[in-house]
Amino acid sequence: MAKRSFPLSHVYRLLEPGPVVMVTTAGKGRTNIMTMSWHTMLDFEPPIVGCVISNRNYSFDILKATRECVINIPTVELAKKVVGCGNTSGRKIDKFKTFHLTPAAASCVKAPLIDECYANLECKVVDGKMVAKYNFFILEVLKAWIDRSQKDPRTIHHRGKGAFMVAGETIKLPSKMK
Amino acid sequence: MAKRSFPLSHVYRLLEPGPVVMVTTAGKGRTNIMTMSWHTMLDFEPPIVGCVISNRNYSFDILKATRECVINIPTVELAKKVVGCGNTSGRKIDKFKTFHLTPAAASCVKAPLIDECYANLECKVVDGKMVAKYNFFILEVLKAWIDRSQKDPRTIHHRGKGAFMVAGETIKLPSKMK
Repeated sequence: MAKRSFPLSHVYRLLEPGPVVMVTTAGKGRTNIMTMSWHTMLDFEPPIVGCVISNRNYSFDILKATRECVINIPTVELAKKVVGCGNTSGRKIDKFKTFHLTPAAASCVKAPLIDECYANLECKVVDGKMVAKYNFFILEVLKAWIDRSQKDPRTIHHRGKGAFMVAGETIKLPSKMK
Repeated sequence: MAKRSFPLSHVYRLLEPGPVVMVTTAGKGRTNIMTMSWHTMLDFEPPIVGCVISNRNYSFDILKATRECVINIPTVELAKKVVGCGNTSGRKIDKFKTFHLTPAAASCVKAPLIDECYANLECKVVDGKMVAKYNFFILEVLKAWIDRSQKDPRTIHHRGKGAFMVAGETIKLPSKMK
């Protein structure tokens, strides 16, 4: 997928709507993908993101050790693969191979981009103080990529138990907020 | 709006999709409303929520002092009022009056519910360690209310600069995730 650099100051516009994302990591000679919905922006620029990655997940130890990951944002066309990655563990399978996803080289981190996702955010862990108590990692986005052809990406938003809301129309209102 | 008690174990299903919410507080003999999008679940049960409330907001001092608030979830019918609350400050106006919203008594906290919102989560601050650095409050949801007639609530999701994605259709997939 043809991607272009995306301004770091606009990264909040991708995550603030609350899409399900896929977090990629690389460590011990392997890569992994984890499906994740518990994330929030913490600051605009540099973009700081907080996210929960459970210590039961294979990605937890890799992220703790390497302090690097990529947040990949899928659209509804990838929904089955997103759920597949959520239902399985990187301890047992290579998710890129199993779900026919394409790893692409990142520019600032060793974790791979998922080529099929319309946006990719290369991140490093900048604060691990909340990991022990909440499994909450604080990340800085170092580099962002986007497929600019997708003006209104049909992201998916988890409502629990396999129900996903698909992004609908976008409306404009006279907001003074960023 | 007729509301019923909502199981605390299901609260994540309301917030995980990432809707814009309205946070109400009460202090110094006044109430306030703040529009907010930077929130995430941190745990299922009891439901723990992390959210950013900037120290530039009037609600920040009230929340710090009273350690109580309500997270109210609006649907698209309220979008203009949501933006109105975001564009103004409780230092200068009474937002309930200005935007014709109806305060209703909560059961566990002094902050009011916004009656017109389809769901309301009564919260107390349980961890303030991240407030100084990130304006990040950690809340426990004590009581949840919902209008059960809204099966697929048309929540709004902020894309920045006054653009809001409106919740579209819901799809079901064979996910093993909670």
